[in-house]
Amino acid sequence: MISITIIGTGIVAKHLCDAFALSDSVILKQVIGRNKKALLHFQNYTETSSDYKGIKNSDIYIIAISDDVIRTIAEYLTEKKGLIVHTSGSISVHALPKENRTGVFYPLQTFSDGRKIDFNTVPICIEAEDEHDLALLKKLAGTISGSIFEISSDQRRPLHLAAVFVNNFTNHLYAIGQDICQENELPFDLLKPLLLETAKKIGDLSPIDAQTGPARRKDQNTIDGHLKRLRHKNQKEIYKVLTRSIKETYGEKL
Amino acid sequence: MISITIIGTGIVAKHLCDAFALSDSVILKQVIGRNKKALLHFQNYTETSSDYKGIKNSDIYIIAISDDVIRTIAEYLTEKKGLIVHTSGSISVHALPKENRTGVFYPLQTFSDGRKIDFNTVPICIEAEDEHDLALLKKLAGTISGSIFEISSDQRRPLHLAAVFVNNFTNHLYAIGQDICQENELPFDLLKPLLLETAKKIGDLSPIDAQTGPARRKDQNTIDGHLKRLRHKNQKEIYKVLTRSIKETYGEKL
Repeated sequence: MISITIIGTGIVAKHLCDAFALSDSVILKQVIGRNKKALLHFQNYTETSSDYKGIKNSDIYIIAISDDVIRTIAEYLTEKKGLIVHTSGSISVHALPKENRTGVFYPLQTFSDGRKIDFNTVPICIEAEDEHDLALLKKLAGTISGSIFEISSDQRRPLHLAAVFVNNFTNHLYAIGQDICQENELPFDLLKPLLLETAKKIGDLSPIDAQTGPARRKDQNTIDGHLKRLRHKNQKEIYKVLTRSIKETYGEKL
Repeated sequence: MISITIIGTGIVAKHLCDAFALSDSVILKQVIGRNKKALLHFQNYTETSSDYKGIKNSDIYIIAISDDVIRTIAEYLTEKKGLIVHTSGSISVHALPKENRTGVFYPLQTFSDGRKIDFNTVPICIEAEDEHDLALLKKLAGTISGSIFEISSDQRRPLHLAAVFVNNFTNHLYAIGQDICQENELPFDLLKPLLLETAKKIGDLSPIDAQTGPARRKDQNTIDGHLKRLRHKNQKEIYKVLTRSIKETYGEKL
C-alpha cells in the first residue's frame, strides 16, 4: 500500500484523485487546498483541509498546483520524511526543497472539467534522484497507467515545449477553423471528423509522411486564393509562416 | 439503383470505390485512369480502362483527380447525359462543362493509403444547380455516409481553407513536435495520447473554451524559455505568431 497526499484542488488534482480512487493499492490520506469550495469535490474521497501547517504524514506528497507557487507551497513540507513530487511539465525537480526526498510525477495529458480520461494510456513522466524513490514512483504510476517513462528535468522542458505545439497551438488552429466557419455560416461540425482523423492517423503514419495540402504540393494558385480570402492579420500571418515552413520542410527554399 | 463511373485512380478514387463497393444500391460501371498500374487496384471491383474516349454511360460520373486537370478531363464527358461531379474542395462547379448536368461531391476527410475510413461519419458536401440532380447526389451520398451537407461553391472555398488550418497545418505542428522530440532523444509516442485527446475533446468543448497553455495564461517566463530553446528559424516564427494570436484572442493587445 502506498499512502499519498494531494496538494492542490485544480483540474490535475481532480483527475489524479479520480484515478487513484480506483486503485486498491493507494490510500489517499488527505487533500490540501486554500480554496474551500474547490475542496468540496474531494470530500467524496477523503479528508480535506486548508491548513498547510497540519499536513498529515504520507509516503508521497503530490503537489498539483500552478508552476509559480510550487516552490512556496513546498516549503510547508520540509519537515516531512515522505517523497515530495510536483506534476509540472516545465518546473525542475530542483524547485523542491533540497533537504527532502524529491521527484516529479508529470502526467502528459490535457485535462478538462467534465471529460473523463482513460488514465491507463496517459504517459506518466517520472523523475527522482534516489533509485528507491524512482522505484516507488514507478509503482505509484503503475497503479493508474500502463505507460511510464523516466524523464529527466532537462528532457522534460523540451517535451513540454513539444506538447505546446501539438496541444495548445493545434487547439488554436481549431479555433481559427471554427472562426472561418462562423464567418461563412458553415457548421463547425463539418470539420470535426477531419480534425479527429488528422490526429488518429498519427498512430500509423509519421507526421512527415502524412503531410498533404497546397503547401506540400506547392499549389501556389490555391495558396494565393487562401491568402486573399483571409482578413484577420494574425490568421494571415499564421497561414504564411506555416506554409513557408511546410514548403521548406519538403525541399523548396524560398 | 444508381450507376456510377469513377474517373481517377488516386487516393480519393480508391476510398470512394471501396465505400461504394459495400453499397447494394450503387453499381460501379467503370473506373477510368491514365495510370495502368494504378488501375490494377480497381480491377477487383469492376471494369477499368485508360481510354477517355470510350467512357460508358452512367447516371453519375465522379471526377476524382488533381484540381489542375479537372477542366481538361471533363471535356471528354461533354456528350454524356449523366450528371458530372468532381470531388475537389477548392474548384468551383463552373469548372465543369456548361452544356452538361454538373455538381460537386466533396468528401471532407483526409485519406491515406492503407488506413480504412468509416465513411458513415465522413461529411459529404454536395452541390448541383438542378434540384433533381441535388436529390440524386443526396441519394448517392446517403448510400455511404450519414452526414450530408448542401454546400455551395462560394461556401466550399472557405470550408477548404478552414480544413487547411485544422488538417494540413495541424499535421505540420505534429511534425515539429516530433522534431523537438528527436532532437532531445525523447520518444514521439509520448505525445500521441495528448494530440489525440486534443482532437477528441473538441467533440464536447468549443476550441475557444478548450484553450490552455502559457500563451493563454500569459505566462511570459515559460514563453521566453521556450523561445530561447527553439533553434530553427521557422519553428521560432511559428511559436511567436501563434502565441501572439492566442494572447490577442484572449484579450491582451500587444
